[in-house]
Amino acid sequence: MTPPALPFNIQKLGYIEYQVTDLERSRDFYVDIIGLFETARDSERVYLRAIEDREHHCIVLKRAPRAGVAHFAFKVESEQDLDALEAHFRKLERPMRWIAAGERRAQGRTLLVQDPLGFPVAFYAKLEPVEWFLQKYHLHRHGCPTRLDHVNVLTPDAQKGYEWYCNGLGFRPAEITEGDPPESRIWASWLFRKSTVHDIAVMTGDGPAVHHAGLSLMEPMGVIRACDALAGAGYADSIERGPARHGISNALFVYVRDPDGNRFELYTGDYLTTDRNAPPVRWRLDDARRQTLWGPPPPRRWFEESMAVSSIETGEEIAKQPALMRAIPTYVS
Amino acid sequence: MTPPALPFNIQKLGYIEYQVTDLERSRDFYVDIIGLFETARDSERVYLRAIEDREHHCIVLKRAPRAGVAHFAFKVESEQDLDALEAHFRKLERPMRWIAAGERRAQGRTLLVQDPLGFPVAFYAKLEPVEWFLQKYHLHRHGCPTRLDHVNVLTPDAQKGYEWYCNGLGFRPAEITEGDPPESRIWASWLFRKSTVHDIAVMTGDGPAVHHAGLSLMEPMGVIRACDALAGAGYADSIERGPARHGISNALFVYVRDPDGNRFELYTGDYLTTDRNAPPVRWRLDDARRQTLWGPPPPRRWFEESMAVSSIETGEEIAKQPALMRAIPTYVS
Amino acid sequence: MTPPALPFNIQKLGYIEYQVTDLERSRDFYVDIIGLFETARDSERVYLRAIEDREHHCIVLKRAPRAGVAHFAFKVESEQDLDALEAHFRKLERPMRWIAAGERRAQGRTLLVQDPLGFPVAFYAKLEPVEWFLQKYHLHRHGCPTRLDHVNVLTPDAQKGYEWYCNGLGFRPAEITEGDPPESRIWASWLFRKSTVHDIAVMTGDGPAVHHAGLSLMEPMGVIRACDALAGAGYADSIERGPARHGISNALFVYVRDPDGNRFELYTGDYLTTDRNAPPVRWRLDDARRQTLWGPPPPRRWFEESMAVSSIETGEEIAKQPALMRAIPTYVS
Amino acid sequence: MTPPALPFNIQKLGYIEYQVTDLERSRDFYVDIIGLFETARDSERVYLRAIEDREHHCIVLKRAPRAGVAHFAFKVESEQDLDALEAHFRKLERPMRWIAAGERRAQGRTLLVQDPLGFPVAFYAKLEPVEWFLQKYHLHRHGCPTRLDHVNVLTPDAQKGYEWYCNGLGFRPAEITEGDPPESRIWASWLFRKSTVHDIAVMTGDGPAVHHAGLSLMEPMGVIRACDALAGAGYADSIERGPARHGISNALFVYVRDPDGNRFELYTGDYLTTDRNAPPVRWRLDDARRQTLWGPPPPRRWFEESMAVSSIETGEEIAKQPALMRAIPTYVS
Repeated sequence: MTPPALPFNIQKLGYIEYQVTDLERSRDFYVDIIGLFETARDSERVYLRAIEDREHHCIVLKRAPRAGVAHFAFKVESEQDLDALEAHFRKLERPMRWIAAGERRAQGRTLLVQDPLGFPVAFYAKLEPVEWFLQKYHLHRHGCPTRLDHVNVLTPDAQKGYEWYCNGLGFRPAEITEGDPPESRIWASWLFRKSTVHDIAVMTGDGPAVHHAGLSLMEPMGVIRACDALAGAGYADSIERGPARHGISNALFVYVRDPDGNRFELYTGDYLTTDRNAPPVRWRLDDARRQTLWGPPPPRRWFEESMAVSSIETGEEIAKQPALMRAIPTYVS
Repeated sequence: MTPPALPFNIQKLGYIEYQVTDLERSRDFYVDIIGLFETARDSERVYLRAIEDREHHCIVLKRAPRAGVAHFAFKVESEQDLDALEAHFRKLERPMRWIAAGERRAQGRTLLVQDPLGFPVAFYAKLEPVEWFLQKYHLHRHGCPTRLDHVNVLTPDAQKGYEWYCNGLGFRPAEITEGDPPESRIWASWLFRKSTVHDIAVMTGDGPAVHHAGLSLMEPMGVIRACDALAGAGYADSIERGPARHGISNALFVYVRDPDGNRFELYTGDYLTTDRNAPPVRWRLDDARRQTLWGPPPPRRWFEESMAVSSIETGEEIAKQPALMRAIPTYVS
Repeated sequence: MTPPALPFNIQKLGYIEYQVTDLERSRDFYVDIIGLFETARDSERVYLRAIEDREHHCIVLKRAPRAGVAHFAFKVESEQDLDALEAHFRKLERPMRWIAAGERRAQGRTLLVQDPLGFPVAFYAKLEPVEWFLQKYHLHRHGCPTRLDHVNVLTPDAQKGYEWYCNGLGFRPAEITEGDPPESRIWASWLFRKSTVHDIAVMTGDGPAVHHAGLSLMEPMGVIRACDALAGAGYADSIERGPARHGISNALFVYVRDPDGNRFELYTGDYLTTDRNAPPVRWRLDDARRQTLWGPPPPRRWFEESMAVSSIETGEEIAKQPALMRAIPTYVS
Repeated sequence: MTPPALPFNIQKLGYIEYQVTDLERSRDFYVDIIGLFETARDSERVYLRAIEDREHHCIVLKRAPRAGVAHFAFKVESEQDLDALEAHFRKLERPMRWIAAGERRAQGRTLLVQDPLGFPVAFYAKLEPVEWFLQKYHLHRHGCPTRLDHVNVLTPDAQKGYEWYCNGLGFRPAEITEGDPPESRIWASWLFRKSTVHDIAVMTGDGPAVHHAGLSLMEPMGVIRACDALAGAGYADSIERGPARHGISNALFVYVRDPDGNRFELYTGDYLTTDRNAPPVRWRLDDARRQTLWGPPPPRRWFEESMAVSSIETGEEIAKQPALMRAIPTYVS
């Protein structure tokens, strides 16, 4: 399959905005224990970045009455790309609105849309440059994430989600999980714009909902150090799954729930996807190695719980629709 | 408590002899995947050592019709210590016999006893020196164990087991788990002669039985590499528990079952016990941090399954007697 | 600076062909000690790949009367790109010739040119797919390279080299070293097509010559394990420089000389260059942190010795022309 | 050689007191960059401990007009051992004095002597227990030393130094370096009381002087992280030697100079010396693998510079006497 020619260039997943109920507590968790850096804060938000970041934020914590994901955002190459995206979504008659440059701290003009899968997604071309912490090693702590790498979302029809991201937005598949033959519809796909395994994974599940955001680490010991730091600080129960290794993407991972229950993954060990035309790696849903190359089986709640998303028009939480395929593999007890 | 003056000096746990049903398959597992070195082999046994070893073996694989532990052995300082131990056990009227020097490959005169807890235990002073693989790094593989560090046994009355090892053989406690107050009998103890957390742990359980032997690794990444190698070779299901970290001993660990189901632990991260008079670290049985500072909870079979031991007189498997205290903590589901 | 629109798409550095005088000895070195995998061999060449590779080779060892680099090769996206490149080089009147599909083992039609800097460079679009070793962890050894990441070359006029690669071939600069002001000509540049710091670095020096090829590792411990394996196998003297960390690219590195003296780097710790328009990081030549963020200073021979390249027409070694700028920084004693 | 029966039991090296000219600056260096923990401080001293320590201090920083080592101290098992040591040194007519319990912060009665080699050495049995940081992982930083492991001293006649420590104080040799045959006098020895390779190494050199104190790390990545943190904080030039691996002791090491030039080693990778009667590993002085199994050769100043010690009577620095054997191996350029 040749990717369609599209009049815009999405570079990568840019940031995610988590809703948190206690801004101070969450800031301390993400900074002191997880090892992100605080770029800025105000009464409503804390802006965080990771050691590879040369721009203002990759995680935003937003004060809110409940947990969840306010939106996630893709960075595009140019302002023109934003206009092309506006035209693209207008044709699809999706709800959208512009956020003016500077209305969001350090951020250029931003297009916020409710995408065809129901997700609140932002697009922007500019984010203020900031000091690079890559070689400020004396400030690195514990797991010390390098970057926001991907977001993993749940949608009732993951085949449709795959098609939207590939055909609608120009993503390429690195890995694919197929449901039961003979149908073999796509049960999940790992899709990239930048050259890692994914910027977004689209999985079958009750949705629209966000399963987790993935933060990459510099090295495998970072996974161990993150667990140690969590346990030392009294957050051992925040470790939901892992350490273990995924067959998909080869990630050595641990899944963590923040103090509000928002989920993120700390991982390392995936590979470059330099060849955009390479055939995707294919897995069967019920192949246990797919999810767990080694390690304890995933707990059931890892499949059953997810982060709600909201309407960009009303701010109301969007009700999740049930998955069209079986959402839990046979190897989960 | 001052340790009693005893007329013999046990240096350390020396080796363990595992019963395996397919010598070739087990040899390949322990050498090619786990990273032990083969010192010698004959039709009945394979002799293995680890990278710190300067003597002939620390793990012996013995061809047998069923899995289990033939015996484990402590190294004493001198031949005189063996005579003193013989007198010691004779007073206790325990079954015992001498194995002549050379009767066991590369091994000096050895005293084999059925100890007061029912375990088949050997004592020896001499083992043939061999080439040291510590700096033969080009031959190191995967987890690459450094040494046999400890054995962990189950006995119905762990308070009695504690007393036997401390008062009868001169071990010192590094850490202790106590049962429910007000009784607070010892539920388990981690006991050492050499300066690590333990040479033997004595836990409450149906016994006499061996729970596992512990092999130390050079570094925490060894735990990850061991899991990776096991999964790569098709042994992902042999990983029974972990990676995770124990509160007790601070070990970063993974528990592995060999092709016959014999259990061993690969771990790193414990501490020196140089001060023999330091008060032991004390834990409550139902403190989940005791077993799992972080990581998934132990699977039930980790508590319920163990390796049988045999009579030194008849060779028959010894029937396990039920534990006198509750053997499974409340945090195990 | 906007990159020029070019009628071809170079994906990445694809492979390098080293000349070795003893094929067997070199194969054992690269496979048994360095941890590459042998894909194929014949009487003239050994074909090696790394754990991320899904195609036939990234390092080729070629039997030759002397050490050196036969050529290095870039992979392009399509066969049409090869034709466009032919037209491109024809206009420049550079020596070139086609190697027919299959003439080189497992490799499609290949265009071999003597580029404007005098280097023998090949371009190809197809390489036979092979089994992926990424998750064959039981076969991973020592440093275990993940991929061929970059080649680093020496040319008398590195400003000109920079311009050729950026304007002539569409590379983007991740980092730049400038010479003394007021001139501030480019002394070296790290240039990428794929999204890492470089596919090629072009440095000031007597040339045309190849300084080294860089192989990335999965994790920082790989650098230590590589050194250990080299020392264990009697190759401690093959470690030329490091372990240490470069300021440029943030690489934790070690430089190794193979049994013929060919140089390669094993490294980890660089960053993604997803934003192709990000301004390059700039360094001054005599900033010691540039080359050595920490670690011992580079030995003089690291600057003075390099690998010769040959004419694609005569096969004769090309005489090196002296550098137009000072080739050795002040911090080298 | 059987160790002599001695009427006292030295457990281990207990602490070292470094002289520093700026207490605040040194405290920040050792705590914020190296990763030791501050137990207490007053106007004259800062008391530091490492993550394995369950007692008050292992490094003391003392305000002084010049760098150097005030003294180092061994911990003995009991108060009676102190009296036996007093009698021992009285027979040798060495200068000594008692420091009363509590006169030194958190420390019991202490015997301070000028030993037969001229070193100021203290002995004590009691040090106040403190909170254990082993599992306070959220407070661990960078290299994060586990313990003070050893001190390495220079003395003109290292054979005599060896004899004093073995016969006079009951140490055992783990490794020995011999000078040129036919004499083969001991050029250096690595001597232990606790079960690691050494509590003290006695090397040939102008002395009495202290070469370095050794702090062990939890894992090899700690060496890399320590270098990174030093460089990040602007202390790259404080890294004097390494990372590299010693043949002796198998230590992966880096040598660091503190802001006053006091030297210490951060290392990991040595082995247990459980068998006190094992024959020592023997090396020839000019075997380069002895000092550097792999890595850059030691800089000359590593051999030529050392920390002065003082008279316990006058407080004056003791003039160094020249080494009786060649103090610099042939492999140092």
